Amino acid sequence: MKLLVINPNTSESVTEKIAAVARAAAAQGTDVEIVTARYGVPYIATRAEALIGGRAALEILAERENEFDGAVIAAFGDPGLGAIRELMAIPVVGLTEASVLMACPLGRTFSVVSFSSRLAPWYRECIAWHGMAGRLASIRMLDAHVGDVGLVQEENEDLLVELASRAVEEDGAEVIILAGAPLAGLGSKVRDRVPVPVVEGVAASIKIAEGLVALQPRKAIAGSFRQPALKPVTGLPEPLTRLIENGR
Amino acid sequence: MKLLVINPNTSESVTEKIAAVARAAAAQGTDVEIVTARYGVPYIATRAEALIGGRAALEILAERENEFDGAVIAAFGDPGLGAIRELMAIPVVGLTEASVLMACPLGRTFSVVSFSSRLAPWYRECIAWHGMAGRLASIRMLDAHVGDVGLVQEENEDLLVELASRAVEEDGAEVIILAGAPLAGLGSKVRDRVPVPVVEGVAASIKIAEGLVALQPRKAIAGSFRQPALKPVTGLPEPLTRLIENGR
Amino acid sequence: MKLLVINPNTSESVTEKIAAVARAAAAQGTDVEIVTARYGVPYIATRAEALIGGRAALEILAERENEFDGAVIAAFGDPGLGAIRELMAIPVVGLTEASVLMACPLGRTFSVVSFSSRLAPWYRECIAWHGMAGRLASIRMLDAHVGDVGLVQEENEDLLVELASRAVEEDGAEVIILAGAPLAGLGSKVRDRVPVPVVEGVAASIKIAEGLVALQPRKAIAGSFRQPALKPVTGLPEPLTRLIENGR
Amino acid sequence: MKLLVINPNTSESVTEKIAAVARAAAAQGTDVEIVTARYGVPYIATRAEALIGGRAALEILAERENEFDGAVIAAFGDPGLGAIRELMAIPVVGLTEASVLMACPLGRTFSVVSFSSRLAPWYRECIAWHGMAGRLASIRMLDAHVGDVGLVQEENEDLLVELASRAVEEDGAEVIILAGAPLAGLGSKVRDRVPVPVVEGVAASIKIAEGLVALQPRKAIAGSFRQPALKPVTGLPEPLTRLIENGR
Amino acid sequence: MKLLVINPNTSESVTEKIAAVARAAAAQGTDVEIVTARYGVPYIATRAEALIGGRAALEILAERENEFDGAVIAAFGDPGLGAIRELMAIPVVGLTEASVLMACPLGRTFSVVSFSSRLAPWYRECIAWHGMAGRLASIRMLDAHVGDVGLVQEENEDLLVELASRAVEEDGAEVIILAGAPLAGLGSKVRDRVPVPVVEGVAASIKIAEGLVALQPRKAIAGSFRQPALKPVTGLPEPLTRLIENGR
Amino acid sequence: MKLLVINPNTSESVTEKIAAVARAAAAQGTDVEIVTARYGVPYIATRAEALIGGRAALEILAERENEFDGAVIAAFGDPGLGAIRELMAIPVVGLTEASVLMACPLGRTFSVVSFSSRLAPWYRECIAWHGMAGRLASIRMLDAHVGDVGLVQEENEDLLVELASRAVEEDGAEVIILAGAPLAGLGSKVRDRVPVPVVEGVAASIKIAEGLVALQPRKAIAGSFRQPALKPVTGLPEPLTRLIENGR
Repeated sequence: MKLLVINPNTSESVTEKIAAVARAAAAQGTDVEIVTARYGVPYIATRAEALIGGRAALEILAERENEFDGAVIAAFGDPGLGAIRELMAIPVVGLTEASVLMACPLGRTFSVVSFSSRLAPWYRECIAWHGMAGRLASIRMLDAHVGDVGLVQEENEDLLVELASRAVEEDGAEVIILAGAPLAGLGSKVRDRVPVPVVEGVAASIKIAEGLVALQPRKAIAGSFRQPALKPVTGLPEPLTRLIENGR
Repeated sequence: MKLLVINPNTSESVTEKIAAVARAAAAQGTDVEIVTARYGVPYIATRAEALIGGRAALEILAERENEFDGAVIAAFGDPGLGAIRELMAIPVVGLTEASVLMACPLGRTFSVVSFSSRLAPWYRECIAWHGMAGRLASIRMLDAHVGDVGLVQEENEDLLVELASRAVEEDGAEVIILAGAPLAGLGSKVRDRVPVPVVEGVAASIKIAEGLVALQPRKAIAGSFRQPALKPVTGLPEPLTRLIENGR
Repeated sequence: MKLLVINPNTSESVTEKIAAVARAAAAQGTDVEIVTARYGVPYIATRAEALIGGRAALEILAERENEFDGAVIAAFGDPGLGAIRELMAIPVVGLTEASVLMACPLGRTFSVVSFSSRLAPWYRECIAWHGMAGRLASIRMLDAHVGDVGLVQEENEDLLVELASRAVEEDGAEVIILAGAPLAGLGSKVRDRVPVPVVEGVAASIKIAEGLVALQPRKAIAGSFRQPALKPVTGLPEPLTRLIENGR
Repeated sequence: MKLLVINPNTSESVTEKIAAVARAAAAQGTDVEIVTARYGVPYIATRAEALIGGRAALEILAERENEFDGAVIAAFGDPGLGAIRELMAIPVVGLTEASVLMACPLGRTFSVVSFSSRLAPWYRECIAWHGMAGRLASIRMLDAHVGDVGLVQEENEDLLVELASRAVEEDGAEVIILAGAPLAGLGSKVRDRVPVPVVEGVAASIKIAEGLVALQPRKAIAGSFRQPALKPVTGLPEPLTRLIENGR
Repeated sequence: MKLLVINPNTSESVTEKIAAVARAAAAQGTDVEIVTARYGVPYIATRAEALIGGRAALEILAERENEFDGAVIAAFGDPGLGAIRELMAIPVVGLTEASVLMACPLGRTFSVVSFSSRLAPWYRECIAWHGMAGRLASIRMLDAHVGDVGLVQEENEDLLVELASRAVEEDGAEVIILAGAPLAGLGSKVRDRVPVPVVEGVAASIKIAEGLVALQPRKAIAGSFRQPALKPVTGLPEPLTRLIENGR
Repeated sequence: MKLLVINPNTSESVTEKIAAVARAAAAQGTDVEIVTARYGVPYIATRAEALIGGRAALEILAERENEFDGAVIAAFGDPGLGAIRELMAIPVVGLTEASVLMACPLGRTFSVVSFSSRLAPWYRECIAWHGMAGRLASIRMLDAHVGDVGLVQEENEDLLVELASRAVEEDGAEVIILAGAPLAGLGSKVRDRVPVPVVEGVAASIKIAEGLVALQPRKAIAGSFRQPALKPVTGLPEPLTRLIENGR
């Protein structure tokens, strides 16, 4: 099984963190390739940046889908996920989505803990889009100064653990999701310092992707994820143009 | 007051329909300029096409925001709306958004009537994002063959009126929203053939935009629509790059 | 365009505040007439007082509807609004309704800030009736001693600004609605002291009313806002009796 | 125990039906007095009529509360219920409220069956106000021509039973509420012809009122049903004026 | 009328408290018998314990249903309630259910106050199952050390009253439910020390059960509470086996 | 990795179907053992039967948990799942739960298709308990006569495919869940005859269980799935008694 993991951020340091966790999580027989967005911002933290990153991820999949059995959009907020699913035939899963799905059997409620208050309303929208707002206990955010996004995990480990504990005690969280690709790998590191299960998002996304591929779901020919009607395109890159104009 | 109305579709025939309704709806003293997306598809009907059209609209506003007091994203589904609001200081309203807001004081529930079943799940997501799913009676869709999108209105008028009447009788709709920019202008034409108020989306968006500009809201400096933190950008057009890197 | 703005409170000092804001907000060509309830209480703050004030507003409109193109019920809590819409053919909008509609395009969530904790549960019911509870971040209330309701705005300006700021910081409000007709005009005064947009309710109601009139919606002949079946009436004032017994 | 049952409709024929069911349902030791609204319409079927009937009921209770231990507002839609609770110290229950409360232990979902489609949206609002919309399977309405409201039950018995059965089969209703005071008594008559429990609304309201009185709840001195702040009143009947100006 | 009140806990001291309140609440002519679970734990505080207690209650009713007109499951969390309703023909009500139903006419929102934080998420699930989560203001829990469950009431009275008052002030509770069978009787004792109505759960359950029996609801022959299809049974006690294999 | 799959039904023919699908779905290195409930009914179809089957599953896990890394409750409706999670330290997943989690990335909405209308309200409750009611398009049920539950799949294949297609066309389902352990294996067989992805529940549960085990979640020491407080037990089997009295 071959999985494509797309970092829709432009920062290679985040790609490396994702790669390490993704490879460790992959089952025997699962090959994982990780690619970085060619344009955009180092770290997506807003809807505008997600609009840009979502299209970047879509362009990558338009080029390379046929080499893979499944794909992961490796950024919280799941940029472009709905759009990508329409055009792709392979299963694709987002980081927020995989995290909340895996959190469900581990507790009645989950809290999302991350490093920037800017992210909270947008994460909330994403979780609502997935229909899971009813199980969200809270979103708790540091207001860390983010200099080098590659260092945000190391610099804030203790504060994040404390925030997670407050989510458990004060908000009734029964699972903690450490959100944001720059925190990839932190979950397993702090596992024993948090009184409830911690979901490692990148690992969760690999396991959900593997599960989806194993189920061998057909490409829908009805509903909103079926291939869109073919249309003429103006001014888009060639692989995306071909996909929209000619389908697969 | 100067309003910029952006058609995120590439079809000039749709732009013309929008322009006619927008100008007729504008109050004395409101100047309306209408522009068409430079890239994308003739008519946005899916999340993927909205991702593309949303960025096209964002690029236009990145260039021209400072010439205007307010803006309208003149496509149902409101492509890019959340993203655009983060980066812009002027009020911006979407076609779906304006329609549902104006529908509220006219009836307890509204139905959305349009010409392609493809649109329904995506419109539903859009209405849920606006927090208005509780007032949605139904979405009723023709399955019209859409050859020339500029003709879809003329060719389907009677069928759309019938569909609207069934939404009233069977789904309990108390207001009808004729959705989709290609139907611009149809609302006033069929007004007397539907037993409940019909909201003309483009007209609604002009009136909401005028109202928002009149309220003189400040640009938020807190919350998720404040200016994002400045960041380095890779590979984006110059005006958008400047906006993300330097702010306003 | 002629708009009737009804103050369902009996206090003329509140009527004057409403009048000043309403006239300033009206577009060129919009004539606004403001009238005060003939019976009831100086300031409606409970469901019981709203039941009384709602009927007072209904009686006024039963007499004078045909002189106007649209109407505003200028009290938060929108007394009698649903009832009034059934019997009237012109568009009618409430102060809470207009405020929340205008708040929507300005932020993902709004908080309502006002001067008496008594009002909170009733305002919450009103917002739920409008289907907008999902976008309500919080209701924050002073517990101001209200001596002269005409002075409540002046005496509490600083405290209200502080409360608004706490709603932004602690509750995640992205828009502030300063609620209660006695606060009419305060929104524009404190605009720059609150970090998110402030909606001025009376101004919002004028703009929504103007927009509705411009859309020229037909009187529904189906659904729950169509004219009720004619019925014999006992013991009501003449214009209301005529409306219920004979229709328009 | 003394209960006051108020018919907010002006029709004595409906009062008689209510009286027969209420007296049969009352426990030994419960005295029931039934009164008819002094003004309004013969049968409340709209929000406007409920606004009028709600105030009529409020006036009756303002005069006579101190003679009773509890009260019932004997009209579906529960006219004025929230308002009345603020001003009264004795427990008061509405017909819709009592019906849905008693329906809950009898099935997972209930359908409301009645004789006029006009009533449906307003009943739905009432059930939502009670927080019970999640258990409502459907509202099914005859479109009976209502000549003499006193005859509507006799003339439509078979059609109503058939409608109830369709609600069970097609909508998944597990309890049927035959709604509308003019249908008082029909529930027990058709009990064996409907495949799920039928709630007789007037009987339910007597049992809930008896239960509430037995619990001896204190009058709230906090929250939205505490006595409103005293206020000067203009132009209201004397007992209501006294209650608002002086409290109890 | 004969009511069977089942304590699904094994502690006789709790049974005695329940008995005292139940008998005091019963109307003239209502005979109440109270029985204790034959197996399980002294006090049910978790889903696992409720699974065991629910089956214990089911076995008791399988044996003795035909001696009674109605039954009460006298533990908060309503162990086995849905299951029991399927197999029984008489009305059965749970303690949480009866409390929330009786709370509804007494205030817009209720808070549940009890003695162990362990109970909160499970009570919340129970209230959600009843469809009443929308009226739940909060669940406030002591973290009392529970030595002898028969003493928990006496030892914590003052702390529980204080908790109730905080629920009123900080969470907007308009009714207080003192939850947990070990607190039976406390409600009436502290009635005047809490600023809003306090619902005594055991008393509420007797009044709801009496009301249900008075309504004479038929056993459903449709829907999810009709008698299940008969099936062969392995390894269950005889009365339960007979009920599942042969029906009534 | 060792997984225990528990069939809470007593029918060995269903156990065999589950076993075949579970083993086929297991990854290399995953050992799956399947056991059948020792008491109860051949096929759980009601809440009462689930109460019995849930305790049967709990008893099995109380005996054998320490031999395994994870477990599956292999019946739709997830009997005893919440209770089991409290007492176990290994991850446990239910068949409904795994199916809806895997359905989420495959479509915006799912429909549940099965063979008995009896199951619908109970499945609906189960899906609501998982917080996923918002993504449920419909539950569609045959009313198959179930003679031998081992034959229900073969006898109804065509009817089930047709029902699935109607769920897609009429209810907007974007994923189909063929529910009920007796249908294990049908999903892959009919995959190409349904126009949207079909989730095979047993396979989904194996993949979710494998994913959960791989995440190595800690046993919660906070929240509602932490080990319950130790308590004396009366009248339960020895392993369950030991678990409740002494913990692990």
